[in-house]
Amino acid sequence: MVPTVEWKDGAVCLLDQSRLPGTVEILTCRDYRAVADAIRELKVRGAPAIGVTAALGVALGALSVRATDYASFAKAVGEICNHLAATRPTAVNLFWAIERMKRKLEASTSLSIPSAQQALLAEAQAILREDIALCKAMGKHGAELIRDGQTVLTHCNAGALATAGYGTALGVIRAAWEQGKTIQVIADETRPVLQGARLTAWELMQDHIPVTLITDNMAGSLMRQGKIHLCVVGADRIAANGDVANKIGTYSVAVLAKAHGIPFYVAAPYSTIDLKTKTGADIPIEQRNPLEVTSIHGSHPVAPAGVRVYNPAFDVTPAELITAIITERGVFKPSELADRFR
Amino acid sequence: MVPTVEWKDGAVCLLDQSRLPGTVEILTCRDYRAVADAIRELKVRGAPAIGVTAALGVALGALSVRATDYASFAKAVGEICNHLAATRPTAVNLFWAIERMKRKLEASTSLSIPSAQQALLAEAQAILREDIALCKAMGKHGAELIRDGQTVLTHCNAGALATAGYGTALGVIRAAWEQGKTIQVIADETRPVLQGARLTAWELMQDHIPVTLITDNMAGSLMRQGKIHLCVVGADRIAANGDVANKIGTYSVAVLAKAHGIPFYVAAPYSTIDLKTKTGADIPIEQRNPLEVTSIHGSHPVAPAGVRVYNPAFDVTPAELITAIITERGVFKPSELADRFR
Repeated sequence: MVPTVEWKDGAVCLLDQSRLPGTVEILTCRDYRAVADAIRELKVRGAPAIGVTAALGVALGALSVRATDYASFAKAVGEICNHLAATRPTAVNLFWAIERMKRKLEASTSLSIPSAQQALLAEAQAILREDIALCKAMGKHGAELIRDGQTVLTHCNAGALATAGYGTALGVIRAAWEQGKTIQVIADETRPVLQGARLTAWELMQDHIPVTLITDNMAGSLMRQGKIHLCVVGADRIAANGDVANKIGTYSVAVLAKAHGIPFYVAAPYSTIDLKTKTGADIPIEQRNPLEVTSIHGSHPVAPAGVRVYNPAFDVTPAELITAIITERGVFKPSELADRFR
Repeated sequence: MVPTVEWKDGAVCLLDQSRLPGTVEILTCRDYRAVADAIRELKVRGAPAIGVTAALGVALGALSVRATDYASFAKAVGEICNHLAATRPTAVNLFWAIERMKRKLEASTSLSIPSAQQALLAEAQAILREDIALCKAMGKHGAELIRDGQTVLTHCNAGALATAGYGTALGVIRAAWEQGKTIQVIADETRPVLQGARLTAWELMQDHIPVTLITDNMAGSLMRQGKIHLCVVGADRIAANGDVANKIGTYSVAVLAKAHGIPFYVAAPYSTIDLKTKTGADIPIEQRNPLEVTSIHGSHPVAPAGVRVYNPAFDVTPAELITAIITERGVFKPSELADRFR
């Protein structure tokens, strides 16, 4: 599969996810502002993927800084970090990755500027490599929760496309599949941006993992018919109490799962866990352009002009609706997270 | 507002709802087969509206029959009835209206063929007039359930466009608004065919009733935030035990409403109540073309080619999730219906 994001020939190369599945096109960003635009416009999305991309964006920006002293260099890189951090508010991996790049910047004051630039690039590339390793570890732990013959519902795309590779929720599914389990996936299409239809279905079909696409409002009916055995989703931010912010609609899936006695799992790496945020109520929820709801792909209108719209990109699922959280260190109850990841 | 369906100059005239809200166009059907096609292709939809339309279709067909004796006439009209009944399986109003036309046909054996044809037309027109009167009666009863300042969630379109006029669920909302109550409506867009975005939002905006459009997966989050005070939906068929078949996604809304302690009402006339169907499990659920899910308006793809799709047009909400059913005779618990409408 085409990598979601990579560093190639001095540029950040992104698979333009806004054009999938119709067009497979690589976007080459030679400037950190282009990287920020790509994050803001959902050309790359998914909490881990935007973290990795932002880190590479910081490295790309740092390499372009022309400074004669480290203080000026650090100031310029700090501004690049701020620019990239201002793209999206909810996924904490973005801030986590930028913070990690800032720490590397601070740890490199004894280096020459060219050496510091290379150190920043190496750090971003390490974040990318680690992300894939984290996903594989999550997959290994999470796959134990899926039994042969089961059907798994997932919402949005928490797959290879949402990470540097392999995926969080889809990593768990992929690992179960690689273990030879016969499983089926039900993919919520995930309006308004249709990441489930455009990305999850595409990604699973590429890997020949059986997938059935539904509209978001069909999940409850399928649960009632006994056709869904468990749910696995990703996360954009996990608060200290185990509340989870994820794609809008995740909360409804969790309520429906609870009502039907179906396990509801969240798969996320440590970089998604934000112990500084006490509960889900403290997580900022991004409100996006109404055009995402009133049209498809911004160009095909599906609603009357001028209609009032509510378009939050995320919702918060309270810890009590979450059976367990799958991490690279194992599977934990939401209430255990703070102790495990302190 | 343009009538949903009317008899005009010897033809059945339909507002082509498949083209709303972009284009307001009247489809003139001069042949009962065209009426059947319009029902099948969702140019007219909504349980009461397809009942009325089918009755007018039977009258239109009957008027075109060239027969020399009543037996041949009745046989030809019977075949027209069968053709119209084969269009859609779930909404019982379709079969109810056709049965009523058949009874009129049987009651007219003593008439000349031209007189019988006029009697059938008069019957269809009576069904149309009665439908509007039923909606207004439902509106009067249901409006008592909405308090000043409340916000009402509705799913799909159970409005003037789903009936001969005024609406069932939207009739209740319209009546509350006409009583001077300050209310807000949240409209689920209702994938895959987007009747909420295309029809409900449009219809309410025409009447200046405040409406906010959301994607189906946002309702749960709004309920959790306390932003929805009650839900009102229509119905395609109500079984004797009070189970309700309605647009796919209705069941999820009902589960979410229950989980948040929000009243969940169904508004429907007597013609939607099917005492011959014991429970929701006995209601046939129409499976529609996967293209409705994999594309928007059949032409704009949103999913990978060849993806497997599940596309039931309806789901069943069990009686225990329904606070009350609003009918033209008053507001009843689902368990009271069978006695009240026997």
